[in-house]
Amino acid sequence: MRDFLIRGVICQSRDPFQISITEQGTVVVTDGVSRGVFTRVPEQYQGLPLLDFRDQLILPGMTDLHLHAPQYSFRGLGMDMELLDWLNTYTFPEEAKYRDLEYADRAYDVFVRHLRRSVTTRAAIFATVHVPATELLMDKLEASGLITRVGKVNMDRNCSDAVREPSAEQSLRDTEAWLRAAAGRYQRTAPILTPRFIPTCSDELMHGLRRLLAEYGVPVQSHLSENFGEIQWVRELCPESRFYGDAYRQFGLFGGDHKCIMAHCVHSGEEELQLMRDNGVWVAHSPESNINLSSGVAPVSRMLRMGIRVGLASDLAAGSSENLLRAMMHAIQASKLRWRLQDQSVPALTLDEAFYLATAGGGSFFGKVGKFDEGCEFDAVVMDDAALEHPQPLSARDRLERLVYLADERCVCAKFVGGERLF
Amino acid sequence: MRDFLIRGVICQSRDPFQISITEQGTVVVTDGVSRGVFTRVPEQYQGLPLLDFRDQLILPGMTDLHLHAPQYSFRGLGMDMELLDWLNTYTFPEEAKYRDLEYADRAYDVFVRHLRRSVTTRAAIFATVHVPATELLMDKLEASGLITRVGKVNMDRNCSDAVREPSAEQSLRDTEAWLRAAAGRYQRTAPILTPRFIPTCSDELMHGLRRLLAEYGVPVQSHLSENFGEIQWVRELCPESRFYGDAYRQFGLFGGDHKCIMAHCVHSGEEELQLMRDNGVWVAHSPESNINLSSGVAPVSRMLRMGIRVGLASDLAAGSSENLLRAMMHAIQASKLRWRLQDQSVPALTLDEAFYLATAGGGSFFGKVGKFDEGCEFDAVVMDDAALEHPQPLSARDRLERLVYLADERCVCAKFVGGERLF
Repeated sequence: MRDFLIRGVICQSRDPFQISITEQGTVVVTDGVSRGVFTRVPEQYQGLPLLDFRDQLILPGMTDLHLHAPQYSFRGLGMDMELLDWLNTYTFPEEAKYRDLEYADRAYDVFVRHLRRSVTTRAAIFATVHVPATELLMDKLEASGLITRVGKVNMDRNCSDAVREPSAEQSLRDTEAWLRAAAGRYQRTAPILTPRFIPTCSDELMHGLRRLLAEYGVPVQSHLSENFGEIQWVRELCPESRFYGDAYRQFGLFGGDHKCIMAHCVHSGEEELQLMRDNGVWVAHSPESNINLSSGVAPVSRMLRMGIRVGLASDLAAGSSENLLRAMMHAIQASKLRWRLQDQSVPALTLDEAFYLATAGGGSFFGKVGKFDEGCEFDAVVMDDAALEHPQPLSARDRLERLVYLADERCVCAKFVGGERLF
Repeated sequence: MRDFLIRGVICQSRDPFQISITEQGTVVVTDGVSRGVFTRVPEQYQGLPLLDFRDQLILPGMTDLHLHAPQYSFRGLGMDMELLDWLNTYTFPEEAKYRDLEYADRAYDVFVRHLRRSVTTRAAIFATVHVPATELLMDKLEASGLITRVGKVNMDRNCSDAVREPSAEQSLRDTEAWLRAAAGRYQRTAPILTPRFIPTCSDELMHGLRRLLAEYGVPVQSHLSENFGEIQWVRELCPESRFYGDAYRQFGLFGGDHKCIMAHCVHSGEEELQLMRDNGVWVAHSPESNINLSSGVAPVSRMLRMGIRVGLASDLAAGSSENLLRAMMHAIQASKLRWRLQDQSVPALTLDEAFYLATAGGGSFFGKVGKFDEGCEFDAVVMDDAALEHPQPLSARDRLERLVYLADERCVCAKFVGGERLF
């Protein structure tokens, strides 16, 4: 059933700075696509079947713009290090296990089940260097009903043997074979090129990925300006680049003629921010991760005002939870401490802005996604907040704010992705 | 049944800086008091009934050293202001409603049920200025099985009429009547003097509370050095005091000859910290609240190293959740951003330190509480982490760390307070 009416308290972003709420609103959905929000359903749609969620909140499905599926197994663990030590101590040894398909099957099964139950409807995902495990993950995600982009990771230097690909050539050959095998195989998932980050990717590998990007027309995702040690390292590795993002640009992997997500951007300078804006790069803001690894806090409200594309990310497992409502909380909280402790020229994020990041901000990477406006693919989560008891009447906006601080997957009572109902 | 053996993975603080874990450990409990943790139960206790929780984690019950029960109704709401505006806009209008006993009954019922299900076994609680509603709250807490100190709030100036007591004299008369009525009435709860904070309490009121403290031998709780605007205000209100804490000291309400909890202490200077240490004042560290109201981050690891008593607090409802595991997460996270953004001379809190704050640190306010050592009152929560699925084997310490980031009340499968089993 892809033609229907769905009624409830409809919440969506009017723009990056303002939430719009329609009580007793109805979204008209035909062929899986929204025809808009109505307080009175137009006559030509009145015969469609009605899903009446009454007083429950209906939010756009949320987009997680950056997460590592193989790290879900150690979420909430090993939070006592900064990035580079954390990668070597926790991350690489865990990712090495995904060479074993039986382990990958068990681990990805947990990950996909939990993601399916969450408020997330779409995600851009890092897998590992292993093609078979990446394909297994894509099979599971395809079956889940979620819509995703998944990356087989590329890394051919500066990491332990257990996860390093033997050569740039081999990494590229594997990547191309994976791209070919994935072509036409999936409805809901698709590949995304995923050089881990510049420190672990040789120049030869990066140039080769640019060739694959051009040939296969796939987007790209990576990490940028997360941590001071990392930034200094890139400066040494790419002495001819003006800044970290400029190094990606020199390899042709920084947006412009292709879709590109860069995670973190905590310490991006003025030139890097402008280049992201000019090239239409999506920033995947990962607040909990940036706190847990003591990286810092990205100036998100400034980015939004500059017109940079920004979405929200859990960054599992440097972020501990797949729950993007919680990521909204962390985004607001981190921005308040940034304001108080670091820089009062960048205001704290508001509820409205955090909501935008999680819905339309990140959703735009997938097209017309993250809103209920005419022509948007219909992704939605219906939230039952009855368990969050309170003695007084609350406005719809109050109820929405409470979800950010208090709700988890138990509150998701129905979920739609691309017009299909998952549960 | 107050004599038993309880077996599982026993976790407790060895000292403020180190967690001690005993796998397949047994706590011997007689007369509701722990006789210690054993890997082999001493012969004289071997006949006691055994509660075998096998592989589940058994933690000391946690102490919430500061929270506002009437604010539970608006947890997760109104997070867009700093302290003084937030009090006037959200807090005082809500607290005024507790004049109505029917409203108080409904609201406190929700609060007590949720607190009972949480990892918290003991708490120091602010009610409102209203004696009948405070007594109602105490009745409900007594019935819950939790052990608490509850304060009828005093405030006779600088707040809206709806919550201001008509005079110092009236406030003191009501407080004394409440102290008398409570005497001998409860087993598990008891009064604590609760001047809200210096801005809302006249000198006459503060002097009167000191007289009540001396006569009734009750402890005291209040707020200290949370917000810059507040601190400046106190400087103006008490020009003869050297610093905020010194003003409490001049009124005789800052520890020394009595037990005293001060919430926040975000911006306490060197002299204030030393006075707290010398007077044995407990700091109620409220990390989420201090983030949500953009107050800042207290230098907790420094306080611990100075020998100041520190416990953890949810500070409902400036903190959104009663879950002290989450408060541990926020404490660690806030301390990391403080380190990164403000002051690298104060290290981030470790897991071990945050665990100490939530258990033995705050528990010490209630006596020998928060550990399983010989002579400690037996407060415990048994944590079932099966829902936090993972594909790999995990150490007990890993499982404990995950609880901090991922667990909520669903994981609490059994709870004991003062030797009594609640569920």
